[in-house]
Amino acid sequence: MKTEQETYVVPGFLANGIHAGIKEAPKKDLSLIYSTKPAAAAAVFTTNAFKAAPVLLDMERIRTGVAQAILTNSGNANAATGPEGYDDARATSAALSKKLNIQDDLVLVASTGVIGHRLPVNKIESGLDKLIEGLRPEGIGDAEDAIMTTDRFPKIAMRKGRIDDREITLCGMAKGAGMIEPHMATMLAYVMTDAHVDGVVLDRLFRKAIDKTFNAVSVDGCMSTNDTAIILANGAAGNPVIKSRSRSSQVFREMLLGVLSELSQAMVRDGEGATKVIRIDVQGARTRRDAQKIAYAIANSNLFKTACFGQDPNWGRIIAAAGSTGIPLPVDGVDVYFEDTAVFKQGRGVSADMKKLQQVMAQDELRVRVQLGMGAKSFSLHASDITYEYVKINAHYHT
Amino acid sequence: MKTEQETYVVPGFLANGIHAGIKEAPKKDLSLIYSTKPAAAAAVFTTNAFKAAPVLLDMERIRTGVAQAILTNSGNANAATGPEGYDDARATSAALSKKLNIQDDLVLVASTGVIGHRLPVNKIESGLDKLIEGLRPEGIGDAEDAIMTTDRFPKIAMRKGRIDDREITLCGMAKGAGMIEPHMATMLAYVMTDAHVDGVVLDRLFRKAIDKTFNAVSVDGCMSTNDTAIILANGAAGNPVIKSRSRSSQVFREMLLGVLSELSQAMVRDGEGATKVIRIDVQGARTRRDAQKIAYAIANSNLFKTACFGQDPNWGRIIAAAGSTGIPLPVDGVDVYFEDTAVFKQGRGVSADMKKLQQVMAQDELRVRVQLGMGAKSFSLHASDITYEYVKINAHYHT
Repeated sequence: MKTEQETYVVPGFLANGIHAGIKEAPKKDLSLIYSTKPAAAAAVFTTNAFKAAPVLLDMERIRTGVAQAILTNSGNANAATGPEGYDDARATSAALSKKLNIQDDLVLVASTGVIGHRLPVNKIESGLDKLIEGLRPEGIGDAEDAIMTTDRFPKIAMRKGRIDDREITLCGMAKGAGMIEPHMATMLAYVMTDAHVDGVVLDRLFRKAIDKTFNAVSVDGCMSTNDTAIILANGAAGNPVIKSRSRSSQVFREMLLGVLSELSQAMVRDGEGATKVIRIDVQGARTRRDAQKIAYAIANSNLFKTACFGQDPNWGRIIAAAGSTGIPLPVDGVDVYFEDTAVFKQGRGVSADMKKLQQVMAQDELRVRVQLGMGAKSFSLHASDITYEYVKINAHYHT
Repeated sequence: MKTEQETYVVPGFLANGIHAGIKEAPKKDLSLIYSTKPAAAAAVFTTNAFKAAPVLLDMERIRTGVAQAILTNSGNANAATGPEGYDDARATSAALSKKLNIQDDLVLVASTGVIGHRLPVNKIESGLDKLIEGLRPEGIGDAEDAIMTTDRFPKIAMRKGRIDDREITLCGMAKGAGMIEPHMATMLAYVMTDAHVDGVVLDRLFRKAIDKTFNAVSVDGCMSTNDTAIILANGAAGNPVIKSRSRSSQVFREMLLGVLSELSQAMVRDGEGATKVIRIDVQGARTRRDAQKIAYAIANSNLFKTACFGQDPNWGRIIAAAGSTGIPLPVDGVDVYFEDTAVFKQGRGVSADMKKLQQVMAQDELRVRVQLGMGAKSFSLHASDITYEYVKINAHYHT
């Protein structure tokens, strides 16, 4: 991630983050990303039935495929606030677009924090002048700081590459993993790029990349009402438009995957109370969906998660979770490995080198591999463990 | 449950439990339930793809609908032991049937404890004489003691009733809730009755009652490889056979539901580390399956479970879990209650009497009700909370 010297700048993008009084001073709580011209835009939102007001507003606006600003507040999720919450989201957007002198429907909004409380619209509106005044190319770090809630560290990732002889920059920022914030906050992820990308291609590439990254992590298996991921591509690099199935779309795709992988893994590492990142590879499935189902069953098994915290190579909990999905498994053909050490083969436990296994289990990052022996499809995800700290954070935060 | 004076006896049944050396002395680890004559039998087993050897053997044997003995060991699950494990299960059954002088296929077997280790067949065989010698009508308490693993208290429930002027006794025993034992042990439940019940009716009533009781509890959402529930009806009461759709089948059904409800709720109360039993009622669903899906989503939400432990009336986590199931909910029509206090109505939080809510959240048993407002179907389940103790028990048990 970021080194001290590195500055995150994407041509044609300005950003800033300030304290507007929603959270306790001096915590930053209002963030703005601004493209100097309208950008091709794509977004992915929570599939939760109880979608927060800003999500509902963005879902309408993203249909045009164009956006220019992303206004985010932390400290209040504007969720479970009824039609008034929707009006509040519109009001902050209207105030911003007026001050920026851009079309109102080019503003996307996001909120993260406590739910069930009206958004403090006045505080947000009062902060806009200062927020806009401070907009600058190297303001991405501040914009990130202002979207964070219980995050222990900022999550920013950048890639540079060449497409048709133009230097292209991709920079992403993110906060939170799933519903990690005590009062149901949120995964937010924003990607800025100066690449010129066809809108349909951008949407498809973004969705596919999200599927392999943010949709392949698990902290506690819970889904927020506010999850939002947005990409803006403003074309400032001046490259010929990236079209479908082109060489340049492949390059762009790899850069995008790189940024989103880095961000999503950072989210897991920063999962509430987490001490470990566990990569779970399910291989040899008949369909990718089967592999995914089994990987999530393992990742979301509290018994597996607590065993990882306890550094116990408990393969019994892995096969029990895999076996619980309803997918008929050839029990005598399933193998389980911790890193390269087989612990379960052909329907029974393998006596493994316990000393080596203990070393593996003590690692901060470790890999579990389940080979089903049924087909050629696979799925990988990253999960965190469950710890005392997780229970503490989530039990002892009172309304 | 049991009072000191009460003795559990079911006419025509003998039982016993002893220490055979599988667990540390003097813990009981070998249990036998014996019907003096072959009994109508029905059973429900884990749907896990990785079924333990005794489950595989019982699944074959239960097809006849008749059984006479249930031999259970604790301390070793005989799971993930391959074909040798299956042979071991057969060997213990064969030794028992020979000593009891009954047909081998009238013996059902069950195991619970550590997985991946060969069953100590010699120890079991060596214990059989003592086990059989001690068989007696009032041995049910010992039989229960010998199937327990991490259970904090025994779970036995009894009902007496009259059917066609005969007194009928139903007595059930159970251990463990789901995969609560650290090394993937097991929910076991056995019901003995002296009622004379048609085999097909017995099977149907048992499955339906299990669905409403043992399949409506959640401790940690994990599924064991060994879960087994068996009912034996030996007809010793001499009642006319209970047939389908009869008045007597209704009486029997109620008694059975009473026993299984009591046992399954005791399992939740005894869930690893649990401090609370939370009843979750999902009402107003379009289908029972929808209601069930939403109830389980709430029950298995770690955020909800930790909030209950922290005595926080966090309705946000309830609606987030309910909304994550993929079932399209009318968000403005969903209501959430803690006991009788509304906390969420028509798409937004309700300012409730916090003092009253805090009292509710401090209760050992509490009820959460979600009214979806979509239809007339409902589902109820009982869940436990997640605590430091849960993490401790499951993290710090090493192989």
